[in-house]
Amino acid sequence: MNIAVLGSGQVGQTIGSKLVQLGHDVMMGSREEANPKAVVWAKEEKHNAVFGTFANAAAFGEIIFVCTLGSVTLDALYLAGAANLKGKILIDTTNPLDYSDEKHWKLTVCNTDSLGEQIQRAFPEAMVVKTLNTLYCTVMVDPEKLVETTDVFVSGNSATAKASVIKILHDWFHWKRIIDLGDITTSRAVEMYALLWRSLRLAKSSHSFNIKVVSH
Amino acid sequence: MNIAVLGSGQVGQTIGSKLVQLGHDVMMGSREEANPKAVVWAKEEKHNAVFGTFANAAAFGEIIFVCTLGSVTLDALYLAGAANLKGKILIDTTNPLDYSDEKHWKLTVCNTDSLGEQIQRAFPEAMVVKTLNTLYCTVMVDPEKLVETTDVFVSGNSATAKASVIKILHDWFHWKRIIDLGDITTSRAVEMYALLWRSLRLAKSSHSFNIKVVSH
Repeated sequence: MNIAVLGSGQVGQTIGSKLVQLGHDVMMGSREEANPKAVVWAKEEKHNAVFGTFANAAAFGEIIFVCTLGSVTLDALYLAGAANLKGKILIDTTNPLDYSDEKHWKLTVCNTDSLGEQIQRAFPEAMVVKTLNTLYCTVMVDPEKLVETTDVFVSGNSATAKASVIKILHDWFHWKRIIDLGDITTSRAVEMYALLWRSLRLAKSSHSFNIKVVSH
Repeated sequence: MNIAVLGSGQVGQTIGSKLVQLGHDVMMGSREEANPKAVVWAKEEKHNAVFGTFANAAAFGEIIFVCTLGSVTLDALYLAGAANLKGKILIDTTNPLDYSDEKHWKLTVCNTDSLGEQIQRAFPEAMVVKTLNTLYCTVMVDPEKLVETTDVFVSGNSATAKASVIKILHDWFHWKRIIDLGDITTSRAVEMYALLWRSLRLAKSSHSFNIKVVSH
């Protein structure tokens, strides 16, 4: 499948490489056509990995992974272009984090709105599914590296898009526990979890962890 | 031990009853001296359970469990009186939730501040430890009802107060996994988790659950 990965940072590279490994054709999109990180990544992957602008990548992809920093996600998607996103599934892995105070990460939107909702409102003809944002990137694509099976969440307005994303999470990344939280407004819940993720990351001195929801 | 439980709702009653069962003397504090719920609760417990105003209870307790609705917590503590809280451990189980929109719970403070911090700032001579707020009350006092061992968190500025609370959680309620998240500013993280807790509660149709942090 032709897949767009928007963002050339650690998340984009990790997801992009996993998708290439799985045999997909991946275009990494960046602000500049030849972003140095994207160029190096595509060269390292050798096969099935190319790079281009956000618009090139969005036009190329049948499915679009949004992997930019939260602070530039909407910008990146405007550059990608509504026409290139129309009718497509946007897998939104982003968090609207402001890291400027290293001790106290904060969100630029929360509580009564979320980045997931902002994206869906800005691109009403795309099908936004928020997922994987509660995890460090290496866990996103390889949940089996943890010692127990843990949970990942999906939020979105389109039931069919969520079903497709659940299948991708399961079949491609081997997620076995996937909880549908509801419509895109539940992005608030998973984005606001970012502060607990950060505190746990500091308490554990590791980013290789996740939560498992345990019932009675 | 003489213990104050501030709040006569479900959380106060559940924690109060557990403390009475453990052989402690418990005074349930309310705005009115004879809050009908507190009166009934004390009558049902028969022994070692009494009721009074917030100030009566705070004066009585060597340790104080704060179990009110988040919306009235600061009010309740002002009524309890700084002199009655001075030098004592305040176990803060509250969340600053606004339930007015049933579909979308929201916090009245978050992201750059928290109720835990507000309490600590308002009563600098008390030792505030935020804990148990990530759980439904029946799980707070009986984590072993869940099918696996899960995690509870503590946040606070006083290391000795946190050590005492960790001992209470372990010895009295049988918590086996207790994560110290850091100072009271980490209350933001656990209070902001309330929205994910709510989404999980709806997705699971149960409030009897908790999260387990799983590492590699």
